[in-house]
Amino acid sequence: MADRPTLAVVGATGAVGTVMLELLSSRKNVWGEIRLIASPRSAGKTLTVRGEEVIVQALAPEVFDGVDVAMFDVPDEVSLEWGPIAAARGAIVVDNSGAFRMDPQVPLVVPEVNPEAARNRPKGIISNPNCTTLTMIVAIGALHREYGLRELIVASYQAASGAGQVGVDTLLNQINKVAGDRALGSRAGNVRQAIGEDLGPFPAPLALNVVPWAGSLRENGWSSEELKVRNESRKILGLPDLKVSATCVRVPVVTGHSLAVHAVFGAEVDAEECNELLRGAPGVVLVDDPGAGEFPMPADAVGTDPTWVGRIRKSLDDPRAVDLFVTGDNLRKGAALNTAQIAELLAVELTKN
Amino acid sequence: MADRPTLAVVGATGAVGTVMLELLSSRKNVWGEIRLIASPRSAGKTLTVRGEEVIVQALAPEVFDGVDVAMFDVPDEVSLEWGPIAAARGAIVVDNSGAFRMDPQVPLVVPEVNPEAARNRPKGIISNPNCTTLTMIVAIGALHREYGLRELIVASYQAASGAGQVGVDTLLNQINKVAGDRALGSRAGNVRQAIGEDLGPFPAPLALNVVPWAGSLRENGWSSEELKVRNESRKILGLPDLKVSATCVRVPVVTGHSLAVHAVFGAEVDAEECNELLRGAPGVVLVDDPGAGEFPMPADAVGTDPTWVGRIRKSLDDPRAVDLFVTGDNLRKGAALNTAQIAELLAVELTKN
Repeated sequence: MADRPTLAVVGATGAVGTVMLELLSSRKNVWGEIRLIASPRSAGKTLTVRGEEVIVQALAPEVFDGVDVAMFDVPDEVSLEWGPIAAARGAIVVDNSGAFRMDPQVPLVVPEVNPEAARNRPKGIISNPNCTTLTMIVAIGALHREYGLRELIVASYQAASGAGQVGVDTLLNQINKVAGDRALGSRAGNVRQAIGEDLGPFPAPLALNVVPWAGSLRENGWSSEELKVRNESRKILGLPDLKVSATCVRVPVVTGHSLAVHAVFGAEVDAEECNELLRGAPGVVLVDDPGAGEFPMPADAVGTDPTWVGRIRKSLDDPRAVDLFVTGDNLRKGAALNTAQIAELLAVELTKN
Repeated sequence: MADRPTLAVVGATGAVGTVMLELLSSRKNVWGEIRLIASPRSAGKTLTVRGEEVIVQALAPEVFDGVDVAMFDVPDEVSLEWGPIAAARGAIVVDNSGAFRMDPQVPLVVPEVNPEAARNRPKGIISNPNCTTLTMIVAIGALHREYGLRELIVASYQAASGAGQVGVDTLLNQINKVAGDRALGSRAGNVRQAIGEDLGPFPAPLALNVVPWAGSLRENGWSSEELKVRNESRKILGLPDLKVSATCVRVPVVTGHSLAVHAVFGAEVDAEECNELLRGAPGVVLVDDPGAGEFPMPADAVGTDPTWVGRIRKSLDDPRAVDLFVTGDNLRKGAALNTAQIAELLAVELTKN
């Protein structure tokens, strides 16, 4: 194929889809035709991509005819139904839902970590990891290559937009309700009273609060989000026995997931060498000068591509362990950007063939 | 001594002092005279305690004459100077600063965990732990008694009031500045721009952000706050070799510190037994029904006395490890309440003698 490949964006009107169109507009030389696809409700809308107006088409089998790569950002059940249909029509599917991530016949790909996995896709489907896993995995992958990872203990600080545009709207509405009342946050129940029933997708008020819950309830008190971090890290790194304990917590931030990571390796680590490895790692920006107020934070990382890494500290009690703090934009590297990067790996492969 | 002992409250006008006066007012039968002491700047003010108006006295050696117990909540350097003066005048000092916590001749006391330590006080001084350590130590102590603690890996979600009233004012001012602007939090730098130079005691904006820093810079990138969690946990639990890694992070919450804790023990843990141990532990409230939206959160724990514990999960990869989430009011159990509890241990001891 000499021409540039054709791309379909399924779920073009959502929170991640909106960021995806921005990303595609800044990467103009990769794709030939770009088709925008959404639910019948959004079909007929006009969106701008690469400076051109494109009419959104309704999801239907025929829209995938002639498509080389189809990126899906839709709910699990939509991916489960429509991913195989798109693949059957000849598109390679890059799916950002949880529908196929743990399917042994579907690779789970992070281009900086395991790009080779994208070549083995018996179902014609490649999965994009969960945003929380993606926030840390590029940095952890760089250290794993040197020291051999054995265990991860992580606590997350997850943004409202991880729950979609409705999560953002809910948080901003709540912030408006609590602003200006100086007594709020000093007495039990005050914040709940001010916010009322406007909880949106969250199980409790998020403004002036932290909510130690994301996803749905799984066995023994673990949340689906926490198990995703464990299972996806194992699959991406090719470490089926990796020990992982995650606690996932929602914080009143619009966009930008952060994680405090305690990583234990098979060999002794050196803090300065960790800094060098991360400074040289693709997709990573090192911000680690706490005396100068420099550490990774959502307010700085939002809207940017890389994983921001800092607070790198060798454990005082275990020479094989390092503690660090990472922040990334959950809509970009955590979703749209990684999907676009996988699709671009495919574009290179298709153009070579 | 048959009469009720005399108490002095040093630092009566601060954020913790204000909560202390509330606590003393609800515990009316412990103390005889209560003297309120502050810097010369605040001397002469009238404050209400136990329903009575009391005039604040300026800090001076003579104010400690006849005092049985003196509670200090003042900066480290004030405690360092004035604690020994109060002790020399015959008062037993209960100090909430960091000045004496690691002094081997000063016990570090949490009444639910190591009350016996309060009896051995060669300098006449007892220290109250840091608020972050106090948020978790009652719950961890209860599990340690059963299983024998070996390692703690914690990530904190610390409230603005941990930095005093100026921290609260700063956060609330910032919330007012970002409220109503729906574009904020979606682009790098927007929050910084909206908030401007109004950072108060924090190194970065706190509204719509998380700041992975508390305290001052120590060796190898660790913060003073993170080392306090390590050193104080070891001292309180009597485990000088306990392995501890802490990452301390400030979040946009007014009051209520939380911690995600991964605790490794010497024996295999049982999740149901952990629940029972914590349900029966003094000073602990178990809130662990995530399917019903019940887990520990600052919005519920603020203004209350106990440590709220939930999200109890046995590690999937280490039978000796448990993950949990704890929240406590950093001005109450994290400061004023624990100080009052230590002082009450002394009041009982003095009344018996």
